[in-house]
Amino acid sequence: MFLGNNKLTRPTLLIDQHKCVDNIVRMVAKAAKNDVRLRAHFKTHQSAQIGEWIRSQGVVSIAVSSVKMAGYFANHDWNDITIAFPFNIHEIPVINVIDPQVLLQLTFLSSEVIEKTDAGLTRVVEAMIKIDTGYHRTGIAYNDFQCIAKVHKAITQAKNITFRGFLAHAGHSYYESSIEMIQKIHEQTRNRMLGLQARYPDAELSIGDTPCCSVLDDFIGVTEIRPGNFVFYDISQYSIGSCTMDQIAVCLAVPVVAAHPEERKVVIHGGAVHLSKDHIAMDDGSKNFGQVVKLHNQGWGQPLTDWSVSSLSQEHGILKSASEKAFNKIKVGDFIGILPIHSCLTADAMKGYLTLEGLSLEHLEGTNYK
Amino acid sequence: MFLGNNKLTRPTLLIDQHKCVDNIVRMVAKAAKNDVRLRAHFKTHQSAQIGEWIRSQGVVSIAVSSVKMAGYFANHDWNDITIAFPFNIHEIPVINVIDPQVLLQLTFLSSEVIEKTDAGLTRVVEAMIKIDTGYHRTGIAYNDFQCIAKVHKAITQAKNITFRGFLAHAGHSYYESSIEMIQKIHEQTRNRMLGLQARYPDAELSIGDTPCCSVLDDFIGVTEIRPGNFVFYDISQYSIGSCTMDQIAVCLAVPVVAAHPEERKVVIHGGAVHLSKDHIAMDDGSKNFGQVVKLHNQGWGQPLTDWSVSSLSQEHGILKSASEKAFNKIKVGDFIGILPIHSCLTADAMKGYLTLEGLSLEHLEGTNYK
Repeated sequence: MFLGNNKLTRPTLLIDQHKCVDNIVRMVAKAAKNDVRLRAHFKTHQSAQIGEWIRSQGVVSIAVSSVKMAGYFANHDWNDITIAFPFNIHEIPVINVIDPQVLLQLTFLSSEVIEKTDAGLTRVVEAMIKIDTGYHRTGIAYNDFQCIAKVHKAITQAKNITFRGFLAHAGHSYYESSIEMIQKIHEQTRNRMLGLQARYPDAELSIGDTPCCSVLDDFIGVTEIRPGNFVFYDISQYSIGSCTMDQIAVCLAVPVVAAHPEERKVVIHGGAVHLSKDHIAMDDGSKNFGQVVKLHNQGWGQPLTDWSVSSLSQEHGILKSASEKAFNKIKVGDFIGILPIHSCLTADAMKGYLTLEGLSLEHLEGTNYK
Repeated sequence: MFLGNNKLTRPTLLIDQHKCVDNIVRMVAKAAKNDVRLRAHFKTHQSAQIGEWIRSQGVVSIAVSSVKMAGYFANHDWNDITIAFPFNIHEIPVINVIDPQVLLQLTFLSSEVIEKTDAGLTRVVEAMIKIDTGYHRTGIAYNDFQCIAKVHKAITQAKNITFRGFLAHAGHSYYESSIEMIQKIHEQTRNRMLGLQARYPDAELSIGDTPCCSVLDDFIGVTEIRPGNFVFYDISQYSIGSCTMDQIAVCLAVPVVAAHPEERKVVIHGGAVHLSKDHIAMDDGSKNFGQVVKLHNQGWGQPLTDWSVSSLSQEHGILKSASEKAFNKIKVGDFIGILPIHSCLTADAMKGYLTLEGLSLEHLEGTNYK
């Protein structure tokens, strides 16, 4: 199979630029309609070039999930970057070498970390206070006003840190699949954040998770939304109702290397090191590791709903078909596509993209020590 | 925390060279005692330098799980390489550019693939026929003599492919946790492979999975064993009984970035992009994503059994403690260690190691398109 002059030979993460840009344009329009800032979360794609597609729609503010990612995008001329992750004091030296012209927001939830950070900084940063509005992963409880006041005070007393606002992630929306429940989570998040703004009138309010930002239309009241996954979407988001199948913008192309007609299954070179082990638990107790789609030279087509990705090991994937007729659609030597369950993890595993026009796009080297 | 002159600042995969070399020495001795070849599977570490530790114990034959990995190790002077994965015909050109002095074994299970491969090859390769002895992931059923004969015949008729033997992976041993069951799986695998050798007397027999190779002592009859994970081991292997906790040779060092005393939990910078999402299902329905250990400047110590890794998202990990006393052992700003559930996936995610002496070791770039 060819994309541009690129012949596919092994597992390759395809990206459909048109779908991706459509997803970006839609979210930009939604933010504009609500008069809120879109601070696109770049942890999903981690790519300088995909960042440019986002910039070309007028976005100037971004979020990232590690200090390393902040450095990478600062080097690619992004000047307003929130590191939306509890700040790790061991990375103060990395912050200090990021161009001082770049407006950097660090995320804090303890006065001790603020004091240590302030003492080590040789540049100015802004502070977002991490608030737990109900997800319970991390953050100060939205109604723990004493703790919030203590952290806020530590910021106001710091030399190198100025207060910018409150940041929340309603990650529990990922476990819902009705608009009503997602709406309810969003309303709760917004109200709890607005409650804080009543106490700290200058505070910006940053929220954002792809299900709420995709499914809902009303964000009035907050300063910014901070979704990330929306640029690609995936089968998890499709299950929640955040996107249509056709809006999913990345697809892992894999070669079929063996067939087992008696079990109506095929083996692909495509495993946990490509797709990650994220899966959806199905009603029958089985696990779904992705959606099989047909590939053609212009991209990928409709899902093959009579095929499933039933298991993954390190490099192997096992696809099962529902019938002999379905089985006959896929042959050894074919390339087929897998729409990922969780595109952020697939992108991080693959560390690079190929557009349907055959252009190679980079991905930050990720998490390696080197 | 310092290792040599390296100050830890962010998630880093530590490797204890002494533990790793001890694991290698033990497996080399076991192979020698049984008079079988140790063909070490390099998919676990994917590192040129760790390969040298193995070579220095006299190992000259290796297995890999992708053509890309074969090219990498061929470039590092390995001259007898089995690609223990059903061969993907789209990678014939990559095979053709590997130094013809390198003895390469490709894995086949269909005559059509053999014919297409033979037609495209410009160098000679050896063939291993992939046999399913009971794992049922892939391979020709051990008793499907007609299919085996057809594939064998295709090899004998090929210009560029010579027959070397049969290859099986008893991966179902990973689901067992008693020596008796692992012994039973091994006996079945060996007997089924010996049954094939009775029909094809010149065939080499290649088996190998870390549980069988670690737990058992008797491999007489097969030509070679092909374990991979034994160089590092991990919590999965510990659960099976393949290793002691103290033999686990890699540990993810992570910074603690937030604490939640009321829930007796801490947040680490260490998530699915570092450890992978592999986990062990616990009896109480919870998931175990790794074993928490204390770190010190000479490595890591005993497990903190009163702490658990209870969830992972992209970059976040959540550790929970069993008591207030336990909770007080870990503070924000500490580095702590996580022994991985599945070291192959953790190594693939991290793509690099730091020895306890502060030396950086490389990992093949893995699965990226670039």
